[in-house]
Amino acid sequence: MAEFDLIQQFFTRPAPSSVLGVGDDAALLQVNAGMELVVSSDMLVSGTHFFADADPYLLGHKVLAVNLSDLAAMGATPRWATLALSLPNVDEAWLAQFSAGFFALAQQYQLDLVGGDTTRGPLNVCVTIMGEVPVQQALRRDGAKIDDDIWVSGSLGDAALALMHLQGQVQLSEDDFAACAKALHQPPPRVALGLALRGIANSAIDVSDGLVADLGHILQRSEVGAEIEVDALPVSALLRSLNPPQPSLIREGVQVTLGSSATPPLIKPLAIRLGSQKTTAKSLVMTRGGWEGFQQCVLAGGDDYELCFTSPVAHHAEIGRIAEQLNVPLRRIGKVVAGQGCIIHDVSGEPIQLKNGGYEHF
Amino acid sequence: MAEFDLIQQFFTRPAPSSVLGVGDDAALLQVNAGMELVVSSDMLVSGTHFFADADPYLLGHKVLAVNLSDLAAMGATPRWATLALSLPNVDEAWLAQFSAGFFALAQQYQLDLVGGDTTRGPLNVCVTIMGEVPVQQALRRDGAKIDDDIWVSGSLGDAALALMHLQGQVQLSEDDFAACAKALHQPPPRVALGLALRGIANSAIDVSDGLVADLGHILQRSEVGAEIEVDALPVSALLRSLNPPQPSLIREGVQVTLGSSATPPLIKPLAIRLGSQKTTAKSLVMTRGGWEGFQQCVLAGGDDYELCFTSPVAHHAEIGRIAEQLNVPLRRIGKVVAGQGCIIHDVSGEPIQLKNGGYEHF
Repeated sequence: MAEFDLIQQFFTRPAPSSVLGVGDDAALLQVNAGMELVVSSDMLVSGTHFFADADPYLLGHKVLAVNLSDLAAMGATPRWATLALSLPNVDEAWLAQFSAGFFALAQQYQLDLVGGDTTRGPLNVCVTIMGEVPVQQALRRDGAKIDDDIWVSGSLGDAALALMHLQGQVQLSEDDFAACAKALHQPPPRVALGLALRGIANSAIDVSDGLVADLGHILQRSEVGAEIEVDALPVSALLRSLNPPQPSLIREGVQVTLGSSATPPLIKPLAIRLGSQKTTAKSLVMTRGGWEGFQQCVLAGGDDYELCFTSPVAHHAEIGRIAEQLNVPLRRIGKVVAGQGCIIHDVSGEPIQLKNGGYEHF
Repeated sequence: MAEFDLIQQFFTRPAPSSVLGVGDDAALLQVNAGMELVVSSDMLVSGTHFFADADPYLLGHKVLAVNLSDLAAMGATPRWATLALSLPNVDEAWLAQFSAGFFALAQQYQLDLVGGDTTRGPLNVCVTIMGEVPVQQALRRDGAKIDDDIWVSGSLGDAALALMHLQGQVQLSEDDFAACAKALHQPPPRVALGLALRGIANSAIDVSDGLVADLGHILQRSEVGAEIEVDALPVSALLRSLNPPQPSLIREGVQVTLGSSATPPLIKPLAIRLGSQKTTAKSLVMTRGGWEGFQQCVLAGGDDYELCFTSPVAHHAEIGRIAEQLNVPLRRIGKVVAGQGCIIHDVSGEPIQLKNGGYEHF
């Protein structure tokens, strides 16, 4: 199959929002008056971001989802994308599934694929996404103000947990894996939330490399610090059930030092707690140091694609209304403070030391 | 070196033409009023488009040059680019050279790098380029009209010849390789020519996969045919010297059938013609069938990045003036005709059969 036919068969769909879509040297697009163009590129590589045998439908979804997430974090409306694809061979069944996953999500957002490239090589998918935002209304990383509340959407850590399962670092039951796999494979881009936060949030970022790392980018660009409360972090019922902090003890103010070599005694070993169930997963989380496995997922786990944003206290009620309208959980996790860096407190107010700050690409 | 530091050190330069460049979830750009946005992506893969040990400075140049060439073919002014880079390891010397090559060319065109991605994986470089063109003035593939002249800039085939040398298919002298290597490694993007052709050309494309294949895209999209004269094709002195048609015989009307199994007797075997010089190159060209080796480079050789365009006869003189002003050779190679497909004539008017239509990516 020639490149031209491949593009024609799998990647040419009507692009009503473009002047000229796939099939020329470049696409021609008309940005609406009064709007800024918002552009982001993400490259996903086999063996680094996904397994070589990853479900192509889910991969097609995800490569667009992670790009939509970047636009969401800017408060932008998605409009167009280009897709560059390096393929080890032409597998028509794979391409049909991949493009179906891509276009299913694109259609949800009336996003048009307007160009790209296909070539032979190790499996690699690069999407450049383009959207629009009214002039000067974009949500940026550099706008956080001292005393802003810090918020997070959805819940954190499930994607990292699912990945640990796939990597054999933990072993989850089928039901438990199903419960967290969606966060890894089909993260819901928070586009509607990003749009709703225009004029409400002072700064925003999407949590792709882990909360601490990504919030750190806001802090650095805004030249402020943050204090967050570990107890306030939004965590799925699954993740909490696998390695729960003992709420009663924590509320009494016992300090938990994440990443310390000694497992804090207040963490009940999961292999015991979970009794007769398969224990591989849980014993690993336990051997990783109880809390450490938990924080690895929740504070430093990548691939969540939730939004982290800061907003003046005055907008608290409005944010509650947004959460309700969009049916997206929004949790206040801390405050922006003077200084630099992020201090994580347990409920006793004691700072927690983190071993691993986030996903590092190299 | 962390991804953040890598981007900071090698890929963050002032981006005066953007509202917000590298360092947020996405870039913010302002397209000028009355302009359409022009977008193209090209992915270059180690082992497919370049050798793993390719000079990183030249690679940085080329990955941008091929994208600039796409904008040139649209008649667009380059403005911004994103760069996604998958690297097997962090080699700072390599990155310094690569980014130097990229930015040296970017600076020539006041093009700003505004975003991208870096990750670990097999070497792969994907650039998405963005430019502007006044509304409805873009040069497209679908505008060719019957009786248009067909033109080509520069000369064809040197890049393919240089590649054949690097692949060991031919062996050139050091001087000869130097003469054609620039076409392969540092093709001059025909941006100024593309701009000058607005309002002059009815259609345009850049010659990246070979003249016959790329002209074929214009013909298909415009629903017309073409007749081109092999004798009119612009070819460098080097390529002509390596495998010259015998002009006197051709002018007498002898038919040359490219790709026929029998080498046309009018082609003097190069091994003989070139006497005492190294003969590997020449004997290969010869064993490939004389004319066949020549046409492989000139008609079907990729990587030329010249512009092929069609234009009404009335603009002939104007095109001459453009060639002179820009100091870019422009050669009329044939005409657009009714029908479909491209017929290539030798000077006797006999059609030539092509074995290999162009570079196929799969």
